[in-house]
Amino acid sequence: MNIAITGGGGFLGRRLAKALLENGRVERLVVADVAPMRPVADDSRLVLAQGDLSSGDMAASIADGADVIFHLAAVVSGRAEAEFDAGMSGNLDTTRRLLEAARAGGRRPRFVFASSLAVFGPPLPEVVTDETAVHPQSSYGAQKAMGELLVSDYSRRGFVDGRALRLPTVCVRPGSPNAAASSFVSGIIREPLKGKRALCPVGRDMELWLSSPGAAVANLIHGALLPADALGRCRVVNLPGTTVSIAEMIAALERVAGPQASALVEFGDDPAVLRIVSGWPARFDVERALSLGFRRDGGFEAFIREYLADEAAGAGVTQR
Amino acid sequence: MNIAITGGGGFLGRRLAKALLENGRVERLVVADVAPMRPVADDSRLVLAQGDLSSGDMAASIADGADVIFHLAAVVSGRAEAEFDAGMSGNLDTTRRLLEAARAGGRRPRFVFASSLAVFGPPLPEVVTDETAVHPQSSYGAQKAMGELLVSDYSRRGFVDGRALRLPTVCVRPGSPNAAASSFVSGIIREPLKGKRALCPVGRDMELWLSSPGAAVANLIHGALLPADALGRCRVVNLPGTTVSIAEMIAALERVAGPQASALVEFGDDPAVLRIVSGWPARFDVERALSLGFRRDGGFEAFIREYLADEAAGAGVTQR
Repeated sequence: MNIAITGGGGFLGRRLAKALLENGRVERLVVADVAPMRPVADDSRLVLAQGDLSSGDMAASIADGADVIFHLAAVVSGRAEAEFDAGMSGNLDTTRRLLEAARAGGRRPRFVFASSLAVFGPPLPEVVTDETAVHPQSSYGAQKAMGELLVSDYSRRGFVDGRALRLPTVCVRPGSPNAAASSFVSGIIREPLKGKRALCPVGRDMELWLSSPGAAVANLIHGALLPADALGRCRVVNLPGTTVSIAEMIAALERVAGPQASALVEFGDDPAVLRIVSGWPARFDVERALSLGFRRDGGFEAFIREYLADEAAGAGVTQR
Repeated sequence: MNIAITGGGGFLGRRLAKALLENGRVERLVVADVAPMRPVADDSRLVLAQGDLSSGDMAASIADGADVIFHLAAVVSGRAEAEFDAGMSGNLDTTRRLLEAARAGGRRPRFVFASSLAVFGPPLPEVVTDETAVHPQSSYGAQKAMGELLVSDYSRRGFVDGRALRLPTVCVRPGSPNAAASSFVSGIIREPLKGKRALCPVGRDMELWLSSPGAAVANLIHGALLPADALGRCRVVNLPGTTVSIAEMIAALERVAGPQASALVEFGDDPAVLRIVSGWPARFDVERALSLGFRRDGGFEAFIREYLADEAAGAGVTQR
């Protein structure tokens, strides 16, 4: 099986690459990213491809011969809001260009599109399902929703065999804060564990819909392996997540790392973040995803322990 | 008020132009179309602009100085299904280009986007509302759904003041059959009224969601005049329609024009049409649209009488 990952130098991409290389059926793994990368493993099947997907050549070379394409590359939510044109190009045009390259290849590859809960926004029902209408309140969410429509129509037409998987906010992300509006969600856990202060721009009562990195990667791979028939007419799936409030997150942090850690979380306003994040739903009915075999995390303490275990195991997976 | 209409040479565009010119507040009306046009009226405010919206210059000239843009130009459903690239270009790229031109103009014009019930498809609830998730089963529907997301996000960002109005199938269209999958819906009324046979590619029990041309034009204008506040966060509205079965349509035809007319409707298969049309919903809850002041038609006999009256009044409105 020949596999390609875009955004493969990012945090989830590296973990995904590592998990895929542990599978003996993978013959070739192209890990593509716009930024320079270090290889996740010393493995002859691994090919690093640095380049910009805004070029058709790069898209064609990624799609060339691929049986499965994981399209993770994106302009994150905060940047897509601050720089509209960069978001349209990096999120919408890039997805279309890659789908076109896959179509031109004529192999009808599996195309796993990393979508996001950011497609949703008010007015929201109490519980979001796969039948809830999208109302993106950020350009990132709008661009992801358009990507889902592209993936669905390219699949319906037989150009690719696509799956658009809406990821919850992934927590705990290692490394440094980034330009995602959700960056603080990992920051309020990761930074205090390093003895650093972290700013929480939303209130204690705010609930979030979270996935651990381990479950996110397992669900991306599961999504690639699912037969098309199982998905029926609908190529879009809300992945399982865990509903956790900020207060519960900080309480779990305190149980794991003590009050000196939880005391490092400071509350303050960030209207730009709040405007985006406050519209995201936190309660989902993911019965369909579970019946399709996608995996659900346990309680939030396990998220923190997964992060600590990963960090202890070595930073190779978690840094470029 | 300066107004522009794309697809202004088409059937709805011409009626819309005529209705707008009856309004004294209109100072300038640019009617744009890719095909040559005859003017709908001898009116110094009317400017005909023939050209292809795939050129940025054409988009810029349409947006230039416009207070209101009605974007009706589209590649119809049957053609967008048969020619995927033409549909992507004519429906998605053109809409984006026009939105960009409006954004560049910096005047934040009202932007009325003619969307369609074709954004919907199975799985469908019993009754479709503005909160029903879209599942396009045609490329036309997917392209319209992406256009809605563009209009919504460009509005949220303040680039335009947009409204995406989902039109029911408009019936009775005058003129000749076209490449829309719904072309037969008008054909089975119009052709028998001319003494010609018409093929119905769907069964008698099939229900459709219809608007008369008069209500469609009135609702496009109403949509342009609505204050943005009335729409709230959601720029997309399912316009009112009438649920009618094929059998009811033919019975109304018989009441208006006698059994010699209804006998001219023949039933036969057209899998390409059936595949697209059978997924369209016919039952909507349009409480929101009605509360916003959009207009609803009466029974189907009135649709036929409107067509006959329009034809009697002269073909000037109904032909290019």
